[in-house]
Amino acid sequence: MSTFVLIHGSWHDGSAWIAVINHLEAKGHQAFAPTIAGHGKGVDKNVNHHRCTQSIVDYIVSKDLTDIVLLGHSFGGTIIAKVAEAIGDRIRRLIFFDAFVLNDGESIRDNFPPHLQALLDELIRESNDRTVMLPFEIWQEAFINDADLDLAKSSYAQLSPEPYQPWIDKLDLKRFYSLSIPKSYLYCTEDNVLPQGEWGWHPHMSSRLGQFRFVQMPGSHEVMFSNPVGLAEKIIVAGRD
Amino acid sequence: MSTFVLIHGSWHDGSAWIAVINHLEAKGHQAFAPTIAGHGKGVDKNVNHHRCTQSIVDYIVSKDLTDIVLLGHSFGGTIIAKVAEAIGDRIRRLIFFDAFVLNDGESIRDNFPPHLQALLDELIRESNDRTVMLPFEIWQEAFINDADLDLAKSSYAQLSPEPYQPWIDKLDLKRFYSLSIPKSYLYCTEDNVLPQGEWGWHPHMSSRLGQFRFVQMPGSHEVMFSNPVGLAEKIIVAGRD
Amino acid sequence: MSTFVLIHGSWHDGSAWIAVINHLEAKGHQAFAPTIAGHGKGVDKNVNHHRCTQSIVDYIVSKDLTDIVLLGHSFGGTIIAKVAEAIGDRIRRLIFFDAFVLNDGESIRDNFPPHLQALLDELIRESNDRTVMLPFEIWQEAFINDADLDLAKSSYAQLSPEPYQPWIDKLDLKRFYSLSIPKSYLYCTEDNVLPQGEWGWHPHMSSRLGQFRFVQMPGSHEVMFSNPVGLAEKIIVAGRD
Repeated sequence: MSTFVLIHGSWHDGSAWIAVINHLEAKGHQAFAPTIAGHGKGVDKNVNHHRCTQSIVDYIVSKDLTDIVLLGHSFGGTIIAKVAEAIGDRIRRLIFFDAFVLNDGESIRDNFPPHLQALLDELIRESNDRTVMLPFEIWQEAFINDADLDLAKSSYAQLSPEPYQPWIDKLDLKRFYSLSIPKSYLYCTEDNVLPQGEWGWHPHMSSRLGQFRFVQMPGSHEVMFSNPVGLAEKIIVAGRD
Repeated sequence: MSTFVLIHGSWHDGSAWIAVINHLEAKGHQAFAPTIAGHGKGVDKNVNHHRCTQSIVDYIVSKDLTDIVLLGHSFGGTIIAKVAEAIGDRIRRLIFFDAFVLNDGESIRDNFPPHLQALLDELIRESNDRTVMLPFEIWQEAFINDADLDLAKSSYAQLSPEPYQPWIDKLDLKRFYSLSIPKSYLYCTEDNVLPQGEWGWHPHMSSRLGQFRFVQMPGSHEVMFSNPVGLAEKIIVAGRD
Repeated sequence: MSTFVLIHGSWHDGSAWIAVINHLEAKGHQAFAPTIAGHGKGVDKNVNHHRCTQSIVDYIVSKDLTDIVLLGHSFGGTIIAKVAEAIGDRIRRLIFFDAFVLNDGESIRDNFPPHLQALLDELIRESNDRTVMLPFEIWQEAFINDADLDLAKSSYAQLSPEPYQPWIDKLDLKRFYSLSIPKSYLYCTEDNVLPQGEWGWHPHMSSRLGQFRFVQMPGSHEVMFSNPVGLAEKIIVAGRD
C-alpha cells in the first residue's frame, strides 16, 4: 500500500482531493492533501514560488512522511519538481497529472501560448492585489468541460484567487533534471486547458521528463471533481511499483 | 431541454440523422435535420456555397426555430459558420462535429492535404456534371472504419453525389470570427478522413475556434451510423448549458 | 472466418501471441504465430533482416497458407512489408500494429529519436555478441506501462536478446509502396515506446501507408500480455473485409 501526497493546482486548495482520497483510502492507501501557501480562501496571497514549495516541504517533513508517491496537478507539477530537489530521499515516485514540467530557467507563464499570456496579462491588469481569478465561463468551458452546469458551479465555488508571482518566477531546475526518482505522467484526454497540440500537456510537456510511465484516462482537467473514482484508480496505476 | 438542428456533411442528407434524432427525442429534446440545397438523391446539384447556406437559414426561419443548438458535421461546419453570421440571434450554441472550421477567405479544398486535393481533382476530372461521388473503398476504409461490411454497404447506399462548387467557394468569415456565440468541438478519436496530425480535425482545425468546449468520443467520422446512441449522448454533453 | 499470421516484435518470439490466438480461435478464426529467425531463446542470433524475412516467407509457403491477414507488431512491421513484396498474392490484408513503417531506404534505427539512438548505441557497445537486451526498467515503464509488477516480470521472462543487424539494415521498399494490398494500422493509445508526437507510431509513421483503415484501442505497446482479449477483438476489426 502506498502513501500518496496530492498537490493541487492554481485556484484550488487541498479540499479539491476529498473524494479522491476517500477512494484511495477505501483501497487501503494513505493519502494527504496539503494546501500550498498562499492558496485557499481567506489567507495571505502574498507568496512567491519558493514560499509555495517550502510550505509543502515543511508539511511532509513535519509529518515525517517517507517513501511517498508525490503527485502534482497542473501548477502543482512545478511544486513537486522543486520539492523533489529538496527532499528527494523521501519520494518513491513523482506523478505529474496534467501538470507543468518546466524547462530549467522557465516560469509557468513562459509555457502559456500567446493568447493565454495575453488573457493572463489582461486579468492581472484588472487586479488590484496581484491575484488572478478564473472567470466562470473559462472554468466551465475549458477546465471542467465534462461536467454539467450544477457541478461546474459547485466546484467553482471551491476556488479562490491565485497569486500571480509564482507564475512568473523563473525556476532553477538543474537539480530536478539530475534526479533518478521514477516519474509518471497522467494525462486526461479531454483536457484542453493548455490547448492540445503545440503547447499541450502531452506529449509537448510530458516529454521533458525523459523516461516516464505514461497513463491516460478520459476526462477534463478537473476529473477530481467530475470523476474522482476513475482518477483515484489511475493514480494507483501511475503510482504503483 | 434543447432544440437541436443537425446539419449533415458531404454526400449525406438529413436522413443520416434518423437514429440520432430518435435518441435525442427519447431523452426529451427536439431535433431537426434539414437537407442542404443540392444534396440528397434526385435533386438539382447545381448549387454554390451561398445557396447551401441560404437553404438552412430559410429552414430555420420558416419553422421559426429559436434558442437552437446548431450542429454541423464535416462540410456542415462551413454551413453553420455562415448560418451563424446570418441569424446568430436564433442560436444558443454551435457544435462543430468533426467539422471544417475555415480561416477567413479559405475554401474547403484549401484545407485538404495535398494527396487529397490530388484525389479530388482526379475525381472531378472524371465527372461530367461537376459532382463527385465517394468511391466505396474510401468510404469503407477511411470514413466508416469502425463498421463491418454490411453497415458500410447499407450506409453507402444512402449517399449521393456531392456538388463540387461549394468545396471551392472561398468564404468570407470575418463576421463569424467576431461572434460571441458559445462553441463546442466534438471529435471522434478514430476519424482519419482528414489524416490525423498536421491537417487533422483536432487540434489543427478545432483550435481556430479560440475558446471552445472540447468533447471527445471513440469512433469514426460516421458514428451517426456506427454508434448513433453514443453520438446522441455526446451531442447532449456538447450542447448543454 | 479469417486466417491470421501474427509476426512478433523485437525481443519477443511467437509464444507472445498464445492468449491472443486462443481468443481468435474461440471466435472461429485460424491463427499462426511463427518465430522470426534469430529470435527466441537459445537460438543462433547471427541474422540480418533478409534472413528474418525469409524465415517468415518459408513458414507461410511451407504451410501453403493463402488469403491471409498478415499482422506485424513493432519490428514485425518491417518484416510484413518485405514478406508482402515476396508473396503478396497470398495476403488479403496487412495490419501494422504499433509497427514500424519505414520509408524506402531506411533502417529501423533511422526511425529512433536521437535519445533512443544514443541509448541503443550504448547498449550495443556493452554487448559482446551484437545482440541487445532490453533493461527491465525500460520494459516496465515504457513498454508495458499498463501492467502491474507481477505481469511486467512474468512477461519479461519470456523475452530474449535481440540481434542488432536487422535494426541497421537499410530496406529497399520500392515494391512495397507499389502494392495495392489493403492495409490497417492498429494503434494503442498509451504506447509510448516511440515517444508520442514527432517520432511516434501514429500519425507520424502510420501516415506513410497512404490510405489505411485506422483502428485504435487503449493500452500499452504490450497489450498481447496486458489485454489479449481486447487486442484479439481489435485485430478482428482491423482485419475484416
